[in-house]
Amino acid sequence: MPRYKFLIEYDGRPYRGWQYQADAPTIQGALEDAIAQFDGQRVTIQGAGRTDAGVHALGQVAHADLRSEHDGGTVRDALNFYLRPQPIAILAAERVGDDFNARFSANARHYLYRIVNRRPDLALDAGRSWRVGRPLDIEAMREAAKRLIGKHDFTTFRSTECQSKSPLKTLDQLDIETDGWNVNVLVSARSFLHNQVRSMVGSLVHVGEGKWSADDITRILQARDRTKCGQVAPAEGLYLVKVDY
Amino acid sequence: MPRYKFLIEYDGRPYRGWQYQADAPTIQGALEDAIAQFDGQRVTIQGAGRTDAGVHALGQVAHADLRSEHDGGTVRDALNFYLRPQPIAILAAERVGDDFNARFSANARHYLYRIVNRRPDLALDAGRSWRVGRPLDIEAMREAAKRLIGKHDFTTFRSTECQSKSPLKTLDQLDIETDGWNVNVLVSARSFLHNQVRSMVGSLVHVGEGKWSADDITRILQARDRTKCGQVAPAEGLYLVKVDY
Repeated sequence: MPRYKFLIEYDGRPYRGWQYQADAPTIQGALEDAIAQFDGQRVTIQGAGRTDAGVHALGQVAHADLRSEHDGGTVRDALNFYLRPQPIAILAAERVGDDFNARFSANARHYLYRIVNRRPDLALDAGRSWRVGRPLDIEAMREAAKRLIGKHDFTTFRSTECQSKSPLKTLDQLDIETDGWNVNVLVSARSFLHNQVRSMVGSLVHVGEGKWSADDITRILQARDRTKCGQVAPAEGLYLVKVDY
Repeated sequence: MPRYKFLIEYDGRPYRGWQYQADAPTIQGALEDAIAQFDGQRVTIQGAGRTDAGVHALGQVAHADLRSEHDGGTVRDALNFYLRPQPIAILAAERVGDDFNARFSANARHYLYRIVNRRPDLALDAGRSWRVGRPLDIEAMREAAKRLIGKHDFTTFRSTECQSKSPLKTLDQLDIETDGWNVNVLVSARSFLHNQVRSMVGSLVHVGEGKWSADDITRILQARDRTKCGQVAPAEGLYLVKVDY
């Protein structure tokens, strides 16, 4: 059966996350429904990142084995037709070899966490950014972010539901860019623990608000204790941007 | 009665436009409701741009006379409280003199029209950008845009419902910027005719798709004939960005 690689954009709000659930709308379920309508059989689609409920994607990658062979453009257009009017779009579909695995072949995952640092509510970006009302000290956040770069035991920043075998991960990038009241946190690693990005961003916001120092970040990291994590940033600000192979 | 100037952001999708209608949700109506709840009386709020149904604002400006005097931050926060959960946010409220009129004191209005030039449907930007599937020739669009700059009779680009006394307007800016598949059209003038921005963008997209040339734009402009206008771009891509005083 020919294997296809998909590049996928979605608005996470209406879904209970990527992973299939029999009794709730999920991205994976919606994609498998569309494939079944196009290809005539139900197959499993495997994603590079199992995003949580409410988390968005600009460039999720997934693979599935179809029964019939078509060119990529045809598969993309057909799946987009069957996905309508859901906020999920196949940006590209490409025939790949059987050795390609969206999850296990990935070399790096890139996430964006969008904060809007202002007091008024969000009108246009509601559900798509985290509004933080207190003024953030961006330089303090950048200083604290450096403490998380590299290989660490990230137990403090790991959900209790995390199924990863090891809490050891190597964080390659944790940059903070600003544009007016927009604060974008760019995060890259080969792989992440469950809730790791949101847990790190939540703790960095404590630093930005002056509640914590960079040394506090080092202290909670070294504690390897989930209860020391400051707060988990809401799902609505998180985007899976890109997966490298 | 103390006059206040408001800077306002909104998602135009749930509304039938800015202007008050007794039997339909409008931005003006929602704001007047919020003011009545805060200030205890119903007043008229006057906006700088009477945006159409589905058109968004990043920086609409309006004024209203309140019964009681408060500092701007208090008025902003109170109105945002009463506006919840609607996608309308007061970004700033400021006490101004009685000679300030949001509509008539405006020196320039700046609009942004967002196009996404790609074949797949929009997942995250549905309702907030115009997806154009055919590849656009941006240089051809820029060349054609130059034909519209300056003082002209814009009858061709004017809705039949337009109430402006004269079709003569001076277009100060019509720039096209690209970032990947995003095509942003930046448009500025002291004032616009009804549907002028969307009519110009719709015609420029004809040029970008190769259906029309820059000379066709000059020809239809000089025709001063509404029926010669190519198409009216959909409301969902249009944003009132800024008003100068």
